[in-house]
Amino acid sequence: MAVNLAPPDPAALAPIAGVDLGVAMAGIRQPARHDLLVMRFAPGSAIAGVFTQNRFCAAPVILAQRHLAAGRAPRAMVVNTGNANAGTGEDGIARARAVCEGLAHALGCAPEQVLPFSTGVIMEPLPVERILAGLPAAVADLAREHWAQAAAAIMTTDTVPKAASRRVALAAGAVRVTGIAKGAGMIRPDMATLLAFVATDAVVERADLERLVRAAAARSFNCITVDGDTSTNDAFMLAASGGAGVVARSDADLARLGEAIDAVAMQLAQAIVRDAEGATKFVTVRVEQGRDEAECRRIAYSIAHSPLVKTAFFASDPNLGRILAAIGYAGVADLDPSRIDLYLDAVRVASGGARDPQYREAQGVAAMRKPEFALRVVLKRGSAAASLWTCDFSFDYVKINAEYRT
Amino acid sequence: MAVNLAPPDPAALAPIAGVDLGVAMAGIRQPARHDLLVMRFAPGSAIAGVFTQNRFCAAPVILAQRHLAAGRAPRAMVVNTGNANAGTGEDGIARARAVCEGLAHALGCAPEQVLPFSTGVIMEPLPVERILAGLPAAVADLAREHWAQAAAAIMTTDTVPKAASRRVALAAGAVRVTGIAKGAGMIRPDMATLLAFVATDAVVERADLERLVRAAAARSFNCITVDGDTSTNDAFMLAASGGAGVVARSDADLARLGEAIDAVAMQLAQAIVRDAEGATKFVTVRVEQGRDEAECRRIAYSIAHSPLVKTAFFASDPNLGRILAAIGYAGVADLDPSRIDLYLDAVRVASGGARDPQYREAQGVAAMRKPEFALRVVLKRGSAAASLWTCDFSFDYVKINAEYRT
Repeated sequence: MAVNLAPPDPAALAPIAGVDLGVAMAGIRQPARHDLLVMRFAPGSAIAGVFTQNRFCAAPVILAQRHLAAGRAPRAMVVNTGNANAGTGEDGIARARAVCEGLAHALGCAPEQVLPFSTGVIMEPLPVERILAGLPAAVADLAREHWAQAAAAIMTTDTVPKAASRRVALAAGAVRVTGIAKGAGMIRPDMATLLAFVATDAVVERADLERLVRAAAARSFNCITVDGDTSTNDAFMLAASGGAGVVARSDADLARLGEAIDAVAMQLAQAIVRDAEGATKFVTVRVEQGRDEAECRRIAYSIAHSPLVKTAFFASDPNLGRILAAIGYAGVADLDPSRIDLYLDAVRVASGGARDPQYREAQGVAAMRKPEFALRVVLKRGSAAASLWTCDFSFDYVKINAEYRT
Repeated sequence: MAVNLAPPDPAALAPIAGVDLGVAMAGIRQPARHDLLVMRFAPGSAIAGVFTQNRFCAAPVILAQRHLAAGRAPRAMVVNTGNANAGTGEDGIARARAVCEGLAHALGCAPEQVLPFSTGVIMEPLPVERILAGLPAAVADLAREHWAQAAAAIMTTDTVPKAASRRVALAAGAVRVTGIAKGAGMIRPDMATLLAFVATDAVVERADLERLVRAAAARSFNCITVDGDTSTNDAFMLAASGGAGVVARSDADLARLGEAIDAVAMQLAQAIVRDAEGATKFVTVRVEQGRDEAECRRIAYSIAHSPLVKTAFFASDPNLGRILAAIGYAGVADLDPSRIDLYLDAVRVASGGARDPQYREAQGVAAMRKPEFALRVVLKRGSAAASLWTCDFSFDYVKINAEYRT
């Protein structure tokens, strides 16, 4: 059950001129569900992306990076769920290439202009024949208005489709930013995220787009964690179709466009945590007054990855000791525990490294019983800060992951 | 339910001349259970220890280190369960000191000759009055044969007491090594472990004892993990009473004694994993043919801490993809996945970074259905290796930790 997350309203997802989306049922892992997505981009579109840092990156991730580096502007993306085509070696690369060739033939472009993406079970051979058989239906379905269907087609253990949209006024006119994402487990993005696809109809140069996608990833997908497991298939792609005919090139326009892209990416990233496997709580962990952002992030991740803290979140148990222990083992060698304050929403629960004298446990329980709350750590040793978003650790996380696949 | 772990046979625990143990019911957290342990050491005993690296180390850990550093040979240790006296600031130090003073008065030594240890709930004030009231009964109970009672008295969420014993022949005669330990959650020792107390009746100089305790910790307690949470109260203490009148000073004797100490520490460390909160599987993770031990350990911990791998262990699901993903994000930047082999016990499940062509899934399931199995990763890039011991992640881990304290 997702935490405060409704399915997107299709009418609120702005179509992007120059970007068409089509879905199909290819029966990759389960029958009678949309599991194949094709995205087609108008000639002249620019595309940039960031990918998983996992050394076991999947075959489609390797191929997508090669195709991007080859220098010909991509014309399409193809996404399948049900099978990640990861840990499959050279055979996996060949299978991903066959899918690109199939779509390139259908769309009349070169195979290197197709970027492949896969998500699902790791280490199973990709069922290429079924995907190729499903492509004609997905191509026939291509339409500018199909963002909501696309969001649903890329789901795996997600329970709610994830999509977001913004409009922003640039100097020369209005442009739109719309995106979709999926992911519910194996979520601890490292310079990238699970699958997220964001497009704008602004005209943006490739170099600017590269900067925008990196900045957005840093502020959104790289600030979430579900279980600390960095996926083999993470990719966050940003496309600029130019369909609005509005050029974004000045610093002011790029900043405004960047804000809209960040907002879409942030909403998608938080949606992934709200819909995390087994999640019953959406928790913001903020570490303030650190020496630098790196130590703030390290402490925030230490808290967010602690199974003891996450089970306490699940139980609405203000178990301050577990939180302080996680701060203590975060690896910040010269940290002085006797200076640290801790807040649950507005309640100061610890001061000077010990229980706050004014704090009553009922206040902590009340804060943690809410489906959303913030945990704030004040280090008092500098002016840096970092936030991340995470969830609790429930019976259902174990159930979902003990039963998935088998 | 502990994995292949029986309570110790009291008759198999060799008494250590010069070391007496006594327990009492102090009602610290629960009535009618032994929750207080006193250990008394004969004059001339040498004692060394290693302690948690958690920056939030508990008041008794701080005080025990101060007392050890003060230079007067310790004469006693006092251990309470039910309350960790951690995250309690200066008041916590004062309370730990009051306990030392109480025991020093009863035994006729200086307070600095008493080392205090606490385990249990974090961030609650230590109930000093109840501990002081319980001390006379514990002192009256002091006897050389009480190792099994001592092992039971220091349990918290442990379900089985943990004790081990060895005899070893040195050049000048036979000596004994006996030890106890506790711990079931918040287990990811960092240069130390939860509470473990090992004693020998050999005559050992303090400097040699320091080397022996560090070496034993590195090979035993620092090779286990349950949940990646490093406790605030970890301590591993090694005492040499000299009661056997047998001096261990030559390299050969110290090596032989070291082997016996390592064996006792290893048995205790593995017992902690066998009795880990919610554990149904005892898993050895071994990483071989790495460039150095550090990268082997990093990869082994990455596997052992992955919630997705641990839930797959629980489900007896040979989900190789999750294991390879955890290897991939371990942070070894130049790792070549296409060289890696993976074994479940004797079955080669992956070769060259992909599923082994000979492997059938039924073999993997059969290996993982056993309560004990080994997962072996072969990196093929050097000659270093590292092993660690861990457990699975079950419904009961969540249940125990969502319900503990509340």
